[in-house]
Amino acid sequence: MTTALRVVSFGLGPIGLAAARLALQKKSIQLVGAIDIDPGKIGRDLGDLLELDDRTGIVVEGDAEAALRRLQPDVLLHCTSSLLPAVLDQLLLAARCGVDVVSATEELSWPAPQHAELAASIDAAARAAGTTVLGTGANPGYAMDFMAAIASAVTFDVQAVKCVRVVDAATRRLPLLKKVGAGLGKAEFQQQLAAGRCGHVGMRESVALVGHGLGFALDQVELTVEAVMAAEDLKTPFLVVKEGQVAGLRCHGHGLVAKRSVIHLDLAMYVGAPDPRDEITLDGTPPVQLRFAGGIPGDQATAAILVNSLHGVTAARAGLCSVLDVAPPRLCR
Amino acid sequence: MTTALRVVSFGLGPIGLAAARLALQKKSIQLVGAIDIDPGKIGRDLGDLLELDDRTGIVVEGDAEAALRRLQPDVLLHCTSSLLPAVLDQLLLAARCGVDVVSATEELSWPAPQHAELAASIDAAARAAGTTVLGTGANPGYAMDFMAAIASAVTFDVQAVKCVRVVDAATRRLPLLKKVGAGLGKAEFQQQLAAGRCGHVGMRESVALVGHGLGFALDQVELTVEAVMAAEDLKTPFLVVKEGQVAGLRCHGHGLVAKRSVIHLDLAMYVGAPDPRDEITLDGTPPVQLRFAGGIPGDQATAAILVNSLHGVTAARAGLCSVLDVAPPRLCR
Repeated sequence: MTTALRVVSFGLGPIGLAAARLALQKKSIQLVGAIDIDPGKIGRDLGDLLELDDRTGIVVEGDAEAALRRLQPDVLLHCTSSLLPAVLDQLLLAARCGVDVVSATEELSWPAPQHAELAASIDAAARAAGTTVLGTGANPGYAMDFMAAIASAVTFDVQAVKCVRVVDAATRRLPLLKKVGAGLGKAEFQQQLAAGRCGHVGMRESVALVGHGLGFALDQVELTVEAVMAAEDLKTPFLVVKEGQVAGLRCHGHGLVAKRSVIHLDLAMYVGAPDPRDEITLDGTPPVQLRFAGGIPGDQATAAILVNSLHGVTAARAGLCSVLDVAPPRLCR
Repeated sequence: MTTALRVVSFGLGPIGLAAARLALQKKSIQLVGAIDIDPGKIGRDLGDLLELDDRTGIVVEGDAEAALRRLQPDVLLHCTSSLLPAVLDQLLLAARCGVDVVSATEELSWPAPQHAELAASIDAAARAAGTTVLGTGANPGYAMDFMAAIASAVTFDVQAVKCVRVVDAATRRLPLLKKVGAGLGKAEFQQQLAAGRCGHVGMRESVALVGHGLGFALDQVELTVEAVMAAEDLKTPFLVVKEGQVAGLRCHGHGLVAKRSVIHLDLAMYVGAPDPRDEITLDGTPPVQLRFAGGIPGDQATAAILVNSLHGVTAARAGLCSVLDVAPPRLCR
């Protein structure tokens, strides 16, 4: 190991804090700064926000540009929003400051279908600056897209892909319970879903990324989301879902070629979901079936993948990259 | 897809032929030449060697340098030997000719421990030429090393790794049956093993590659190989193993830190091996268990991975790369 990678955390919500906490534990990473727009966080020591015993000496700053220009980090650990339009200026700023980016923004994982123009402007800025921008995470970024592409490496041909991800929300923390709508009434769920306050962001991106990764020329992506209702009272450490309330959600994403579904992503996240797992099945020559027993550990996986991707982006080509363009993520110490 | 990748096959043994056959089926790849040193193959059409109905127009050449200089391919699909010293001149030639290389040479997958000087000379030549050299395959290159590294991306920390690969040799073709010593007497097996005519090449490389990938500072690698004897007569489509003969082999590779095994690779390849599978278990925070049901399809996987890595090397940095340095392999069409 040479000198540690100098990293700034931007965005100190649940994911950003978990990633910052992990980054602080890595010898090969030196966390040198933290940025957030929340006035309640600005000026506080990061150790305070993380409820650590000791101060870190890293004081949260509100002015991203001033922080990046002063600190000149190698990589920005970026966890501010799921939505690409909301983070565009932040990513362009990072490029202007010559800083590589690993971002948890779900819509950045494969932005071409939804945000082609924004993606092109980010790519152009990063190429001009010689920096790399990568959107990643557990899902999208790994479980239902990256792993399907990697699994296809052992095949001659693939006719169809199915990825199943089952998460028992009872084993997860409050942010995920809220994200899946646990405890809401059905009407409230639909309302919050429409408002973007619950639901899973990234299914469209995952379908398109699998399509790209396996060379399917998709002519359509179809998404559905439905509430899974509790058939009995369900207890979790954080809340109780009563019979008839929403236990969570189920999302399907289909990638179609000539009206045939060649990619099917099936995501279930609800309290009491049976047999939690990640399973990838390639209808291929030869067929492949790959399974993570118990599922990819969700609360930790996104923070881990973000931090474990920091070294990789420094070695990657300039521009906006997907997880299929850069060296694969792996544990850093 | 832009213009097809121009590829030359070098080495037309079982793996080389399987990879060439697959490359011929890919629209994104144009196989433009074939090289072998076997006088019985030189001058014959590749379609003839592959027992295709039609000629390919690709005539096997014996003079690698003349072929590469004339054809100027993008990538060399290199399948001539398992051993790095045997292929050194071929890899240096490819660099001199400005050609990227995807190689099945097992000892090239992570050559540092055994062949540091040769690796350095290949790396220097490739960097000077601006070309990439990659050693890959199903094992080493994917099943017991690459996948363990990829799986670690979702963890905060890993204390120990175990990879189990079980191959029922009865389901495989003659070259694998010979490689595992099926049908030999025990003494003959030991003799052939010592002479390098049977056994698995690449275990040392896989252990070291996992060590690198997961950041273990290994101070020792220990390897064992033993014959698995048939307890009854075992029939395969290609040969019968009689009771008391060798059914195949079992190899263990251990990577040690301070005399503790932190990496354990357990490879069983014999006729009748129960529960064929590839299974990776990370004793980590959180733990991870990943399993390919039925195992990674061995006869096809190496050819597939080689061909599916061809596009990746053209985008990779110059020099000798490992599978952890380049964009991950995925199906090409």
